[in-house]
Amino acid sequence: MDANLKSHNPIIELMRAHRSVRSYSPEPVTDEVVEAIVEAAQWAPSSSFRQVCSVVGVRDIEKKRILRTLCNNQRWVEECPVFLVFCADLNRLDDLCQVEGLHTNIEYLETLVMTVLDVGIFIQNAALAAEALGLGTCMIGGLRDHPREVIQLLDLPQGVFGVSGLCLGYPAEVPGQRPRLPLAEVLYWERYDATGRMERLADYDQTIQEAGIYPRKDGGYTGWTRIMRRRTSQPPLEGDRMKLREVLEEQGFGLK
Amino acid sequence: MDANLKSHNPIIELMRAHRSVRSYSPEPVTDEVVEAIVEAAQWAPSSSFRQVCSVVGVRDIEKKRILRTLCNNQRWVEECPVFLVFCADLNRLDDLCQVEGLHTNIEYLETLVMTVLDVGIFIQNAALAAEALGLGTCMIGGLRDHPREVIQLLDLPQGVFGVSGLCLGYPAEVPGQRPRLPLAEVLYWERYDATGRMERLADYDQTIQEAGIYPRKDGGYTGWTRIMRRRTSQPPLEGDRMKLREVLEEQGFGLK
Repeated sequence: MDANLKSHNPIIELMRAHRSVRSYSPEPVTDEVVEAIVEAAQWAPSSSFRQVCSVVGVRDIEKKRILRTLCNNQRWVEECPVFLVFCADLNRLDDLCQVEGLHTNIEYLETLVMTVLDVGIFIQNAALAAEALGLGTCMIGGLRDHPREVIQLLDLPQGVFGVSGLCLGYPAEVPGQRPRLPLAEVLYWERYDATGRMERLADYDQTIQEAGIYPRKDGGYTGWTRIMRRRTSQPPLEGDRMKLREVLEEQGFGLK
Repeated sequence: MDANLKSHNPIIELMRAHRSVRSYSPEPVTDEVVEAIVEAAQWAPSSSFRQVCSVVGVRDIEKKRILRTLCNNQRWVEECPVFLVFCADLNRLDDLCQVEGLHTNIEYLETLVMTVLDVGIFIQNAALAAEALGLGTCMIGGLRDHPREVIQLLDLPQGVFGVSGLCLGYPAEVPGQRPRLPLAEVLYWERYDATGRMERLADYDQTIQEAGIYPRKDGGYTGWTRIMRRRTSQPPLEGDRMKLREVLEEQGFGLK
């Protein structure tokens, strides 16, 4: 690959420098900075220009403490100066529809998929904007461990639920990077073709092991495949994350 | 808002300059450029580092023609030099699990939500990387209009489906921008609070009308709320998009 495509480009360099930051300096993150981040994120594309992502910013220490307990006790949820909750929001569109006695098409699985996709697009724009301003970020999928409690804590109305959190703060400590899958495992041409996968993943395991990311009990390190096998062959989590369907239905989402 | 937070920052300026590009110059997009884009995108965070997004790049003119017909006949799907299909991919993790006679936890709605979210995060990173390299992009949610045909066309195996397309090409024409919702409608503090929504949306309708985005039959323009009310109070589309659930179940996804 041409080295010029990877470097000498500030945006691509920023992306390639990404790591999740879980330790923050005491420097405050002002409202203006948060507003600049969310405003920049809004320029992301959205399906049919529906703009279905809303953000609840949390600074209140008691709320952050509760959110930490709801998010699998990840201490950075409490310790970050600002915790942003990115919501799938069909309440706004439903309010518009109700003016004419209509309702928005929340009963379809397609609507859920489209909305979650748009939240993903939006949150990554926000995360990059934050990193561009010198902040560290950490996305918190654990926000879905107890979706009902998050809804209650933040007064999320019908048609809204918290999809992911984002910790924001100036980094106190910048962790190492985790090497990504070989490109050949992720980019195919013309058709999906997994030929050679096991060899590629064996190489990758070696890379991850050498990077020293997943410690073993014996003091050494293990690779990616073993960890993924363990993590993803279990049900999602013991908490409410397994009851997501029930909570989404309470919020009005259907799976037709 | 401090003007310095919005400008003088090349990443935020790039985000704020976004528009979807649907008309491309004949300049080819090389494999190296596509590789640089996908490699940059890979540095996005992923839930539990599962790395569940795979990309199928399509240059073949016949395949692009078929994809165009599958994607609601959007001509830019055929006309762009490279069309990227971003897939939710649990096949890789399942391959890993099968080595030990296990299977990945694809039967939970949580898994679907997590995976689609991660594809959104990944595709936005890719889109920004492309824009950073001077390309124009257009995301194609219409890829889900006929998910089964896309699966067949690209040989997507069990555990994989196409979530969104991305047209890539050097811009022949740069369209105007669509003003976004007022920030106060998208960013709340401490709790969700829709107070003042209808007034904000009335102002926004005025802005959108003045921007001349949605033409009316009488030669004038209409606002955002009327268009959204019409679009979102209908079922998703007449095509297979309404049958997404059936297709996902065929691919192994459950909604527990």
